[in-house]
This record gives sequence, C-alpha cells and structure tokens, in this order.
Amino acid sequence: MAVYTHVSDEALAAFLLDYELGEAVSFKGIAEGVENSNYYLETSAGRFILTLFEKRVKAQDLPYFIGLKQHLAGQGFSCPLPIAGRDGECLRQISGRPALIISFLPGLSPDQPNLNQAFALGQGLAGLHQAGLTYKGRRENTLGPTSWPGLWQGREAQAEALEKGLREKIEADLQHLNELDRHARALPAGTIHADLFPDNAFFIEDELTGIIDFYFACTGPLAYDLAICINAWAFGPDHVFNPQMSAELIRGYQSLRKLNAEEKQALPQLCLGGAMRFFLTRLIDWSDTPADALVRPKNPLDYARRLSFHRQVTDPALYGLS
Amino acid sequence: MAVYTHVSDEALAAFLLDYELGEAVSFKGIAEGVENSNYYLETSAGRFILTLFEKRVKAQDLPYFIGLKQHLAGQGFSCPLPIAGRDGECLRQISGRPALIISFLPGLSPDQPNLNQAFALGQGLAGLHQAGLTYKGRRENTLGPTSWPGLWQGREAQAEALEKGLREKIEADLQHLNELDRHARALPAGTIHADLFPDNAFFIEDELTGIIDFYFACTGPLAYDLAICINAWAFGPDHVFNPQMSAELIRGYQSLRKLNAEEKQALPQLCLGGAMRFFLTRLIDWSDTPADALVRPKNPLDYARRLSFHRQVTDPALYGLS
Repeated sequence: MAVYTHVSDEALAAFLLDYELGEAVSFKGIAEGVENSNYYLETSAGRFILTLFEKRVKAQDLPYFIGLKQHLAGQGFSCPLPIAGRDGECLRQISGRPALIISFLPGLSPDQPNLNQAFALGQGLAGLHQAGLTYKGRRENTLGPTSWPGLWQGREAQAEALEKGLREKIEADLQHLNELDRHARALPAGTIHADLFPDNAFFIEDELTGIIDFYFACTGPLAYDLAICINAWAFGPDHVFNPQMSAELIRGYQSLRKLNAEEKQALPQLCLGGAMRFFLTRLIDWSDTPADALVRPKNPLDYARRLSFHRQVTDPALYGLS
Repeated sequence: MAVYTHVSDEALAAFLLDYELGEAVSFKGIAEGVENSNYYLETSAGRFILTLFEKRVKAQDLPYFIGLKQHLAGQGFSCPLPIAGRDGECLRQISGRPALIISFLPGLSPDQPNLNQAFALGQGLAGLHQAGLTYKGRRENTLGPTSWPGLWQGREAQAEALEKGLREKIEADLQHLNELDRHARALPAGTIHADLFPDNAFFIEDELTGIIDFYFACTGPLAYDLAICINAWAFGPDHVFNPQMSAELIRGYQSLRKLNAEEKQALPQLCLGGAMRFFLTRLIDWSDTPADALVRPKNPLDYARRLSFHRQVTDPALYGLS
C-alpha cells in the first residue's frame, strides 16, 4: 500500500504525448497494490490507472500480463483494459520504470465479503477461467509447488520461533504436497489469477464489477485457483473456516463451470497447497521486514491456521461441494 | 504520503447513510497530505475526498478549518467545499477518527512550477487573503514566532551535528526575529494559509484551479503568507534563490492586493521567519524519525540554505518587489 516511484507533472505530460488521451486534469498516487506504484489519472478522454512496475515484477513477464488483460477484456470479462499509445504499444517507460495505462473500473473491495459476494466471486472466477482458455500466452507459476522447498529452506528456525512444532508440520506438509503434485498436474489447466483476494475484486453492493491485479497470473490447474479463493475468502477475520462462504464460492463457480471428479477429489490437497504458498511468502516478508517499518507485513500464522484446517480434511464435501 | 487509518467498505456504507450522496461506487486511499488520511470517493452524486483527521490536527480547530473553506468557497474562491450531511453537520466520525467529506478539485500539483504558475499562485494567494478578510473565525498561529524558541530548545546539538556552526547562526536569527516580531504584529493581518507549498496548489497547464489543505491556516500578517510562498516556490531544486520566480509571485500577488510600504520593508524579516518555521519543524521531524523508516522526512538543511540567503538580504527589492 504505497507509491514507490514519484511521477512529476512534467514527466506525466511528456508521457501522455504518446497517447491519444488528451492532457491530465487530475493525478493522484493511490494506496493500492503492494508490488507496484499506482496513480489515479484523469484526462480529457476519461479516467484511468497508471501503473509503474517496481522491481518485484519481472519485465519479461509484462507482455504476458498485458496480453492476458487484453484477451479477457476482449472476451467481455470485466478487468482493466490496457490502453495502447499512438504506435499501438501499451508498455512504455516513465520515471525509469516500465509503465502501463489501464482503464478505470468502478467498485469497492469488500473487507468482510458476504455470501452473495462469495457466490458472485466464484462465478467470476469461472468466467475468468472460461475466457482465459483461448489465451495463447503461457507462464509458469513461479510460486508453484516446485518453488516451495526453496522458499522454505533457511526459514525453518523462524517458523519454529513463531510457533513451537511448526517446523515439523510444514516439513510433513511439503513432503505430502510433493508426492501429490504429479496428480495435480493432470487436472484441467488453463490461465489462473493465482492471487484473487478480496482486495483484487470490486463490487457494487453484491454485484461483481471487476477483477484486478493479474500480476501473479500464470498457467496452472484451474481448481487450484478456486482453492486459493477458498483460503482467501472462506476464513473469517478470526481465521476460522466458514463452510457457508466456501459452499457459496464453489456453488458460484460451478454455476458456470462444473468441477470434474478428479478436481473435487483433489480439493483438500489444492487448498493445503494454496495455504502453503501464502504461508511461505508471508513468512519471508515477515522475517525480512524491519520491526519498526511503517508497513507491517501480514502474519504468516494466519496461514498456519489454514494449513491446520486443510490438513485434517479427509472428505472434500467439507468444503461445501455439491 | 500515506493512509494511516483503514476504512472498510461496510464502515463507509454506514457513514454515507448520513449524507444525501447516494452509495459509493469507487473508494481508494490516496497518497496525499502527510497529516491526515485521504480517500478518493465516488458516489452516484459525484466525486469527493474523504479526509480522516489523524492525531496531529487538534479536534477543537476543525470547526475553524471547515468554516474557513465554506466561507472561501462561498466567496467564489476555488478550494474544497465541505459537504454537509442530512442534519447540516459537516464533521462526523468514521473508523474512530473525526472525518469530513469535501468536494473534489481537478488539477495537478507542479513539481517545478514555472513563472506563469508563480504569477497565478501569487494572484491566488491575494484572492485567498481578500476572500478571507470577512471570515469571522480566528485561530492563533501555533507555529508562529512565539513558538520558535520552544521548538528550538533541545535540538541545538542535532542542528550542530547536521552542519558545523549552525547552532550559533540559528540562535542569532531567533534573537533577531524576536526583536522584530512586535513590528510584524502591526502589519495588515487576516486569514493566512501558512503552508502554501506547490503540492497544495492545483493547476491545469498554467491556470490555478484550486488551493487545498488549509490545516495550518490561522490569523496572521498577510505578507508573512507571501513570505512562506517565496520560500516554498522561489527556490529551485538546488535550493538556490530564483529572483524571477520571486518577482512573478509578488507581481501576481500585487495584481490583486498591493503591499504597503511597511509590508515591503518587512519582507526580508518575514522571509527569514518563514524559513525558520519550516527549518524548525523539519529539524524535529528529521531527528524524530527512525533511520530505516519507509517515509524519509525532508532535510532541514534545505531550509538552512534559505535562512543563509534571507540573512544577507538588506534591500527588499532583491525579492523582485515593484
């Protein structure tokens, strides 16, 4: 939640000369996204978001992300549309950073989503998967199962310091997930969002108005994306599983795309994997951030709670599958 | 540049019930202002800024600030207009903070203002002074000359550590300013902005579209406000005095309100005082901020440079008075 790179009014005016958007009439840094700098930009042509890509997003991945949003928006899926300049190019440079103008989406992110929003989000996720099936771009999930042992290495003592006994549990989970990974690779795959938390979904009341922030999108098992959403949406502020939220998410998803028998069977493992991915990256952010920094990282133990829940699920029906 | 207090979508929806603004369709934290939390708020009725007052603004001063903006806007001066709720009240509470909805102003803040913008700003400042003359609210300048010895006390060694010999210079300045303060109190007084830096002024190209952030406004010598603007606008990125910028500021100001002989004569002292006020508060912010904090405070030495300049001015004509 910050603006990392300052853009001067002069730099912006020069940048806009490459577009057919007229001149800027409003420009404000917005506290959205943790990886990039984002600005609200209003010109005589309308309202937009200017994103500057900071170092955590790899430059070679940007054409994949931009192409994906263009493809999804072209299929009628509500996501930000990259705006091309006069030369047809979307990706440019400003203030020393790769930069992109995208269309502005209305809507608000829910802090505590309700059941109707969970249904709408599940449906939206299935819509994203359907629209994404015809996208020709491919990108490996750099935070997928094969990355987890490497992310874990060297963090064992930090985890144990957070909670006694955690080290042994995580190592058993990683072993278990490694054995099952080949199975997950056989599930229906396609383009997944891979980070669809409530702050990446916009609503007006209970209607989903759009999905944003595709900078973790990649090619992977579609049901894994649903499992990430169960982790992100179906645990309350106390990090306790809410079976109704999970059931509504899945019901919304299946209203557009039915899960097959293998996907249903794999759901506990996929949920455990989804929780592991966020546990590990939060563990890293947690231990790498100075204690007195202004922005506190999210507590990895919230995801250790989720791991404990998924670990004991033997029947996938517990997630509210129907 | 931060959002200090989070406002949930639910808290916002409940808050908006007290207004006739319809429901929120967009809501984004914006990185504007260093004292308060600000959100871009769009409803079916239009676009607004929601400000949450953090601890540095005193609650008992808020009616003065709100009344001032209402008064200025009522006089046709372009500043944010406080929006009243159904009960006629502008000041409410959200997320445990005093909060205010104001109208949204178009325009961009210039990083390096040009001469036309300096003229327009000077003219805008005089317009503010004229519109403010009939405002009945009064507020003492809590960062005025009588506060400076107290701000300085205990910071002497920090200043000396920043630059050898600085302690002695500051103490001589404070002595000098103290002797002259009675004289400044006899100058034409009224409502002053007292913090009119370029980031508090909005332009579209060279036209001033509005002035924001009145949370240091107070009752004081009008020419002191101009002196603050000379410090804030007429020194380049290298902190070297730009006589043309200063001359345009003053020319713009006098196009609406002529300075009298006493104000002209007092200008070097007022400029020294304006530089002292920002030197002292920056010195405090500088030494009170941990070295590894994400937000770096501004370097007080930038204002030590300005003090050195103003100290050697004997003829007020040097500022470009005409």
